[in-house]
Amino acid sequence: MNKLLLKEIKEQPKVIDSFLVKQEKYVEKICSKLKDQFDYIVIAARGTSDNAARYAQYLLGSENSIQVALATPSLFTIYKTPPIFKKALVVGISQSGQSPDIVSVLGTAKKQKRPTISITNDTNSPLANVSDYVINLDIGVEKAVAATKTYTASLAALALFSCHLSGDKERLDALKDLPVKMLQTLDNTMKNITQTNRYRYMDHCVVIGRGFNYSTAFEISLKIKELTRVIAVPYSSADFKHGPIATVNKGFPIIVAAPSGMIFDHILDFSKNLISLGAELLVISDNESLLRLGKTSFTLPKGIPEWISPITAVIPGQVFARQLAIEKGLDSDNPEGLKKVTETY
Amino acid sequence: MNKLLLKEIKEQPKVIDSFLVKQEKYVEKICSKLKDQFDYIVIAARGTSDNAARYAQYLLGSENSIQVALATPSLFTIYKTPPIFKKALVVGISQSGQSPDIVSVLGTAKKQKRPTISITNDTNSPLANVSDYVINLDIGVEKAVAATKTYTASLAALALFSCHLSGDKERLDALKDLPVKMLQTLDNTMKNITQTNRYRYMDHCVVIGRGFNYSTAFEISLKIKELTRVIAVPYSSADFKHGPIATVNKGFPIIVAAPSGMIFDHILDFSKNLISLGAELLVISDNESLLRLGKTSFTLPKGIPEWISPITAVIPGQVFARQLAIEKGLDSDNPEGLKKVTETY
Repeated sequence: MNKLLLKEIKEQPKVIDSFLVKQEKYVEKICSKLKDQFDYIVIAARGTSDNAARYAQYLLGSENSIQVALATPSLFTIYKTPPIFKKALVVGISQSGQSPDIVSVLGTAKKQKRPTISITNDTNSPLANVSDYVINLDIGVEKAVAATKTYTASLAALALFSCHLSGDKERLDALKDLPVKMLQTLDNTMKNITQTNRYRYMDHCVVIGRGFNYSTAFEISLKIKELTRVIAVPYSSADFKHGPIATVNKGFPIIVAAPSGMIFDHILDFSKNLISLGAELLVISDNESLLRLGKTSFTLPKGIPEWISPITAVIPGQVFARQLAIEKGLDSDNPEGLKKVTETY
Repeated sequence: MNKLLLKEIKEQPKVIDSFLVKQEKYVEKICSKLKDQFDYIVIAARGTSDNAARYAQYLLGSENSIQVALATPSLFTIYKTPPIFKKALVVGISQSGQSPDIVSVLGTAKKQKRPTISITNDTNSPLANVSDYVINLDIGVEKAVAATKTYTASLAALALFSCHLSGDKERLDALKDLPVKMLQTLDNTMKNITQTNRYRYMDHCVVIGRGFNYSTAFEISLKIKELTRVIAVPYSSADFKHGPIATVNKGFPIIVAAPSGMIFDHILDFSKNLISLGAELLVISDNESLLRLGKTSFTLPKGIPEWISPITAVIPGQVFARQLAIEKGLDSDNPEGLKKVTETY
């Protein structure tokens, strides 16, 4: 126990580097074929992949001016009254490509003669079989139950798609430089991971992220829940103000994931507000002013553009969640009650 | 203290009845003007109104075959790189009509010459001013900080819109009959509200709902957080299986909101699974088999079509959250740390 997950977390810089090299031409081809063939995008995904879909909402909205909708799979599988996709491009994200509800959304899109793309780590899966285009993560089998490398690789796939759709060479270069930054993030995190000790008896927490890193808050929260059984609840700082902020009391543990970028000043102000309410912060950032507010902090490398920052910002959360599982005496590779492939209808 | 909120909860059948009568013609007019003028809908909303938007995803998807996307307001206000709406209809939901981020989404839609509708309780608000069409809830000022009657009225507004868009007389009649069922729900709930006693020292819980009542899970969870400071986390049963189910241990409190309908059998099976994991259930349903699984249960009236069931199913949750606040010695009308109007950017 406690070997597989760390191995896969550490593989991330290398497998993403190799993914970007191997899939660049193919993704470029998809983009040139599909460009101007759709008005908006619908993404179907569950669990960790749904957090990649959350990233896509900001990424494709901000960098490609495309409105992204998240599919509601039960309309397809249970109610059997799916929406008409009109001029949508429909994307499925699933590392295993097995979940019947996600397959059903893509299958319906195909029947409606809409273009479909799947992002998956298994090109022989039902999801791949029902898709016009398959972006193959091809990063080796993920053996630990909690998804890590398939998450960051899915984000990288979306980022590659975004770059080629807009034909933006500068952004593509920044993306290709990212694996080095991921490696630095891993090194920084491993050096400071003993800080996790403090959270041995934490039984709940909130995870805050906004904009591009809304996805990061969701994914860190999911890793914590899966691996440690701690009730970790993700919020954007804006949504948190609309009600849930009432739950904050003295010592309330809040994880803030906020790399530099357009949203940063808002998160900094919000974090000061949380401190004034008595919250105790764990900060993941590259900014000293914010890091100083954390009782515990994980430092991110500087110079990462905000639009790809979720691919690095999640890493300290992955390592923290794993370490916390170990501190609590749990098996981080095979959390009780979870299976690697969850089939939902 | 502890007067305003209950008064407003109890007003719901009456104000919704009157809303439906007063706004029917106007909503019919909007629908006839906008029909075939859009391919999909984007909804901008925060907090309680965002839960109404979640209902709209299922309602308009299932009953009107329309894909609904939830807007990501920070792309408009902070990043200032909004998506291009192409052939979208853009809807803002906000009882106060004040939140600058929601106003900004509608303002951008207007600049892009897309049709806009707002659903609000204040026709002089900035949101109303920036909208082509304003569906006026007109249900009197909501004085308690936690939104209740503006939530169910927003759902009713969406339901009215859905009926007129499809020109479905039978559904419209069912909607008009709903206030009577709401009154029955209130009576049933008030008679059994002493059950809340048991939860005095509960500090966290999960709330499960799926399909149409995914919105109900979110809204009950939000009321509990706002009013009681309990960490209440909403999930669809499908999403819960993809990871968070690992947090369930002996005695773990889970609220299940599941009226009869297409999704019901899935929730019943899932609830049995939760029991086998040791969870303790509080059930809101009209089905005896499910109600029996609850340590505590609130009975809904029979014969409510699933597509409008969220308007009644939320009521026991509202009353429960208020009563739990009182059991915990809190002021249910003015929860500490919250304001009635939250302005986010």
